[in-house]
Amino acid sequence: MAAMTSLHLKTQIHSKPNIPNYPITPIQSHSFKPTPTRILTRILTRNPTRISCGLIEPDGGRVVELVVPENKREVKKKEAMGMVKIKLSRIDMEWVHVLSEGWASPLSGFMRESEFLQTLHFNSLRLGDGSVVNMSVPIVLDIDDVQKERILGSGLGSVALVDGDDNPVAILNNIEIYKHNKEERIARTWGTTAPGLPYAEEAITGAGDWLIGGDLEVIQPIKYHDGLDHYRLSPSQLREEFEKRNADAVFAFQLRNPVHNGHALLMTDTRRRLLEMGYKNPVLLLHPLGGFTKADDVPLSWRMKQHQKVLEDGVLDPENTVVSIFPSPMHYAGPTEVQWHAKARINAGANFYIVGRDPAGMGHPVEKRDLYNADHGKKVLSMAPGLERLNILPFKVAAYDKTQQKMEFFDPSRAQDFLFISGTKMRTLAKNRENPPDGFMCPGGWEVLVEYYDSLAANEAGRVPEAIPA
Amino acid sequence: MAAMTSLHLKTQIHSKPNIPNYPITPIQSHSFKPTPTRILTRILTRNPTRISCGLIEPDGGRVVELVVPENKREVKKKEAMGMVKIKLSRIDMEWVHVLSEGWASPLSGFMRESEFLQTLHFNSLRLGDGSVVNMSVPIVLDIDDVQKERILGSGLGSVALVDGDDNPVAILNNIEIYKHNKEERIARTWGTTAPGLPYAEEAITGAGDWLIGGDLEVIQPIKYHDGLDHYRLSPSQLREEFEKRNADAVFAFQLRNPVHNGHALLMTDTRRRLLEMGYKNPVLLLHPLGGFTKADDVPLSWRMKQHQKVLEDGVLDPENTVVSIFPSPMHYAGPTEVQWHAKARINAGANFYIVGRDPAGMGHPVEKRDLYNADHGKKVLSMAPGLERLNILPFKVAAYDKTQQKMEFFDPSRAQDFLFISGTKMRTLAKNRENPPDGFMCPGGWEVLVEYYDSLAANEAGRVPEAIPA
Repeated sequence: MAAMTSLHLKTQIHSKPNIPNYPITPIQSHSFKPTPTRILTRILTRNPTRISCGLIEPDGGRVVELVVPENKREVKKKEAMGMVKIKLSRIDMEWVHVLSEGWASPLSGFMRESEFLQTLHFNSLRLGDGSVVNMSVPIVLDIDDVQKERILGSGLGSVALVDGDDNPVAILNNIEIYKHNKEERIARTWGTTAPGLPYAEEAITGAGDWLIGGDLEVIQPIKYHDGLDHYRLSPSQLREEFEKRNADAVFAFQLRNPVHNGHALLMTDTRRRLLEMGYKNPVLLLHPLGGFTKADDVPLSWRMKQHQKVLEDGVLDPENTVVSIFPSPMHYAGPTEVQWHAKARINAGANFYIVGRDPAGMGHPVEKRDLYNADHGKKVLSMAPGLERLNILPFKVAAYDKTQQKMEFFDPSRAQDFLFISGTKMRTLAKNRENPPDGFMCPGGWEVLVEYYDSLAANEAGRVPEAIPA
Repeated sequence: MAAMTSLHLKTQIHSKPNIPNYPITPIQSHSFKPTPTRILTRILTRNPTRISCGLIEPDGGRVVELVVPENKREVKKKEAMGMVKIKLSRIDMEWVHVLSEGWASPLSGFMRESEFLQTLHFNSLRLGDGSVVNMSVPIVLDIDDVQKERILGSGLGSVALVDGDDNPVAILNNIEIYKHNKEERIARTWGTTAPGLPYAEEAITGAGDWLIGGDLEVIQPIKYHDGLDHYRLSPSQLREEFEKRNADAVFAFQLRNPVHNGHALLMTDTRRRLLEMGYKNPVLLLHPLGGFTKADDVPLSWRMKQHQKVLEDGVLDPENTVVSIFPSPMHYAGPTEVQWHAKARINAGANFYIVGRDPAGMGHPVEKRDLYNADHGKKVLSMAPGLERLNILPFKVAAYDKTQQKMEFFDPSRAQDFLFISGTKMRTLAKNRENPPDGFMCPGGWEVLVEYYDSLAANEAGRVPEAIPA
């Protein structure tokens, strides 16, 4: 049956019968004869003998979880006390969280040099059996000269990773220390070395000159105690949830912004099409990013309030939507990062990934232009090694249709009917307590935004501090 | 028999029996437990049903040659006259040469966007059958706004590529025009955007804002008329030569510097070891790079004179050595470029590739350090997608052994006995008409170098102009 569905899907997507307004943008450029390239929407090759319930198999065959079993935690804590300690920054801790739950499977800890080099040069890792998994952003831990000497001096092959209060969070075993060429890392990850890249400024420019890789043992599950931990489902927990709901397709939507009705239109439309393709119960993974974001993004706590309102207001159907937090920090590395966003969702069970214009992009930090070509994200994603199993769903941009007074997929043949409301425009409206046009966002969701900007204005410091994992 | 040789080779290389001083540097770092990684020296998987004479199969299955058959050249020239013309720079012409002979097989012309993006992000191309070939440097042709408008205005799907005198060199068909993001191209290719990268300054910084890809028809073989064209064997000609010599192993040595006795030691030693492994007739491809090089490199014509002397002086055995010119321009892009150097040699029939310290590296253009980690070249090469079939032969550095008065593999246990003669030191000696220590280079070869620097001093302009393909 699974095979039949796949076959059916394959036919439908390639020929698009009976779907006249299919909102998938074909890859285009000034081309007289398009290059034969891998088609954008590809077919999941499921292997029902190796996975339960038909969910897509995780990279490397299993979700690699790195949290120590409960009965060994005290012993591990004591072990850690006897080791050289590395204090984790907020972003380091977010990566420990990411690694501990297997979002980066099959990685078993911070990258060693061979993984780091493969990530920088090939955006992928070759496994022992010759197969290839995608891995596009370095997940690394930096140390400085003094720390390196202390670690080498200890004669141990392990170090303790500790939080701001020196409490052991994890042990890194079988360590390998290698040079941290920051310029090369930034250039190969972002395609620029211009100053002002938020992640680079936060986590790389001032970092140590060495990287330390190894196998991670995380002493207990990472929690933030910010009232949102119940949203932080691990890949295994998400898989359980999808199985419980008998999902036969899972489509993931990565976001770091408030949800407006254009997003909602897209998500409900995707579900409708998956049903048309023959899936019986497609489930949406609405998956806001929970880690480090740049200063002018709306903080996670407010975004979660806003998403909650969107569900309460019935814009999305809670019956077939799972809202969860993706614990990764944000790189804003465009075509490089969107691969990470997609790969991590495979590990959580998603076999369809929705990708829009300029995913994970931002303005160039120095020049007056977007840092990335808006189409490169979906093109690179469609060609990325290790993501062949994932169905990529690019979408046309939605805009406010003045004639219908609602968000609709943009129709270039009647461009004058549409209003584009950019993120900047939206923020300005909310800051000024003005309302967007009716139908742009559900009123409950909009109120949350206005409330957020009010709180900002009240807080002279400018930004409400965010929860830190502890 | 081929299978037996492979098996024999596999056993020997893995366990290295009876080869106590095998000059292969293992990959090392401060590692307590080395990461399992693909072993450096891998085994060629030959498929004797698909290739003649046991030579390694070209990427994509055949050498893609793009020169128009003789009886169609006049017609094609006339066709080209009716098209918009793009004038080729020296480096553009070198790439036309490279493409025309199939060094970059299976590329059939300048890259379209999908190939460009895969090169930048993955250093490899996925073919229609799902297989992957290596492709690490962009082979692209830039045009400016005016040229773009003229080409689009012509309504044709083809353009003519012409030399400095407006003679048609090639036709580019089924064209695709796309944005040339120079900063991103430089950052992802070199891992830096620092000013002063020779290739970037020569061919990118001042280039047009668009790239034009397509299928190339080259009107006649590219010739330079500099007295060296007989050295410019195409991949197919090299394959013929290796077959004629009944080579059962071909080991390639890429270089862009004069050959000293350290190089010679390495090459003769490699042959000896291949014989020990069971090969009957290993042939050396001594393969100096013939395209663009930076200003302080010794020009091709002088290097060829020097290489000729080395063969005449019996330092290398002409019986089992093929000297030929590799027409590619030099990027100085270290770990990224060494993949191109290796991949192109697969297409010419080489199944062993010798790689040294810091291949294709240079000093950082701004900072006082090498641009690349000296070990990254061989590490990246050993992990590169599409190069799994190639046997990578890393080597220990050779230095002048004062006790033996000859070049010898450096032995760290008696470091004080060795003298390192850097390129800078060598150049300074030759410029000052001083002699290096006996045994560093054969006297005939050294005389050529002295003669070159004499001619430089005589030429106030500083550099003897090099031949340009015409």
